[in-house]
Amino acid sequence: MTATLRDLGEFELIRAITARFARGRDVLVGPGDDAAVLAAPDARVVVTTDLLLEGRHFRRDWSSGVDVGHKAAAQNLADVAAMGARPTGLFVGFAAPGDLTVDWALALADGLAAECASAGASVAGGDISSADAIMLGVTALGDLEGRAPVLRSGARPGDMVVLAGSVGRAEAGLALLTAGRGHDADVDAGWAELVAAHRRPRPPYPLGPALAAAGAHAMCDVSDGLVQDLGHIAAASQVRIDLDLAALTNLAADGPLRSAAAELGADPLDWVLTGGEDHALVACLPPSAVIPAGCEQIGLVLPGAGVTLAGQPAVGRGGWNHFA
Amino acid sequence: MTATLRDLGEFELIRAITARFARGRDVLVGPGDDAAVLAAPDARVVVTTDLLLEGRHFRRDWSSGVDVGHKAAAQNLADVAAMGARPTGLFVGFAAPGDLTVDWALALADGLAAECASAGASVAGGDISSADAIMLGVTALGDLEGRAPVLRSGARPGDMVVLAGSVGRAEAGLALLTAGRGHDADVDAGWAELVAAHRRPRPPYPLGPALAAAGAHAMCDVSDGLVQDLGHIAAASQVRIDLDLAALTNLAADGPLRSAAAELGADPLDWVLTGGEDHALVACLPPSAVIPAGCEQIGLVLPGAGVTLAGQPAVGRGGWNHFA
Repeated sequence: MTATLRDLGEFELIRAITARFARGRDVLVGPGDDAAVLAAPDARVVVTTDLLLEGRHFRRDWSSGVDVGHKAAAQNLADVAAMGARPTGLFVGFAAPGDLTVDWALALADGLAAECASAGASVAGGDISSADAIMLGVTALGDLEGRAPVLRSGARPGDMVVLAGSVGRAEAGLALLTAGRGHDADVDAGWAELVAAHRRPRPPYPLGPALAAAGAHAMCDVSDGLVQDLGHIAAASQVRIDLDLAALTNLAADGPLRSAAAELGADPLDWVLTGGEDHALVACLPPSAVIPAGCEQIGLVLPGAGVTLAGQPAVGRGGWNHFA
Repeated sequence: MTATLRDLGEFELIRAITARFARGRDVLVGPGDDAAVLAAPDARVVVTTDLLLEGRHFRRDWSSGVDVGHKAAAQNLADVAAMGARPTGLFVGFAAPGDLTVDWALALADGLAAECASAGASVAGGDISSADAIMLGVTALGDLEGRAPVLRSGARPGDMVVLAGSVGRAEAGLALLTAGRGHDADVDAGWAELVAAHRRPRPPYPLGPALAAAGAHAMCDVSDGLVQDLGHIAAASQVRIDLDLAALTNLAADGPLRSAAAELGADPLDWVLTGGEDHALVACLPPSAVIPAGCEQIGLVLPGAGVTLAGQPAVGRGGWNHFA
């Protein structure tokens, strides 16, 4: 018989979950009191929060508890990195039905802890409640280490547009799952990578501070798709961002992306331009900057407005809009 | 015709909501970027997070949008004050059905903003998603202003147990609503106060830092009931907390509490001992301390374990346990 949250009770569950969380150097007071205390050596703190709902942001038949933990942590920690900050702590509100297995909840905790560890952060606090479906309220904090935060509004004509991390792969993985082609047994190694990118995005955390240190004028994470997220930078900075067709075509020429697109009748370039949830970082660097290792130039900042691909409007290639 | 969230769309809704939020002095970068930046002058930051779900933590027929905003902010800001910190910023993940009225969402924003203002904090960021029911993930931050955080684990035999704020009133208000006796038209002034205490708890924010400055050895907010929350201090500090019967009886002799209890066949002392959600603060102060104005002694810390009332076990008078 598999124990459920109802069997275990709230206080034992909290004990079992918090026992999974290693306490990093930035956690001065961890879970168990009215609030946690985190170090904020810079005397400023970067903060971002997101909700993840079962059925909307993840499906239990497509993602394990560990996967959901990784993904929930990654999407918030990536936002911290996108400000040029070093992630320090994660806070997780977790609501679930009483008949959820304890194993699933502990797997979630393991995924949260592992993703935090990969970013140099710790799970430092949270809250548990009962609900009809699983939901997570995740908040991530980070330290700017003396640098100015990198906003969306600082891009200037002449800047290089630079990408850190992958784009389109999580979307391709989701498309495979949606088409019923994603199950572990019947995917090849390349497709398995795409499905893994959907289940556990791998944001390039250290490149956020590296791009900030390289002098980035603007930066954001790619959560809604390259065109839409660069559109936010273009709007906030009152500039045009022109994507380089050769660079984008090269990204779309990735083997697994091409083979999955061929199989599903999709265009891999669409995935690269509009796929969100890989949590890559895009930054605008002054032309004199040295592009950090692991990043590549994919476009240019110009006077004007909007996002173009080789000079042509990239509208219609939008991203996700809730309530639409 | 009343506009709904679906009519307005995500981005317009974000614009309309964030326009309601005054930007306080601690908000260095507000809503609109990947993350916000808050001042953390102490170089440590206090952080707490909670989920609030429609149907479990509030009901739309019993609480307005403004009420829910106040309550959601208050319960998190009170946790910050309970560490002895000054609340600085609030972050709110908000999920709602597309057919929710825009008016309700804006009223929620107004409630959040007003409660933050009353605590000296600002709403500094958030996230919006669609969902079948309304849910809020709220995170509050605070600054310790150079003081040590006041934990649950520092109480020592001989300490005075001191209460700041009211207890039992929110519970009495909820009991009136549950009994169908709470509607505005048919309540007297005293009952209306109790219902208001349920809808908009009023934590004594400035008394958190004041109790810390007075030398509090331990502190927590009363969210699950006096006996249960003092039980957490007793367990963490390995002491016994003995409540003073005269002081508690005096609290229960409050006019509206007595008249509501008489009407509903309840015991006002039960409400005082086990009622949560007023978000009072309880602290353990050394015997030499000067009790801050607005606080009163309600008990004593002794060697031993558990919570007693005039020496008798106060168990059975428990609080809320999710999944139970």
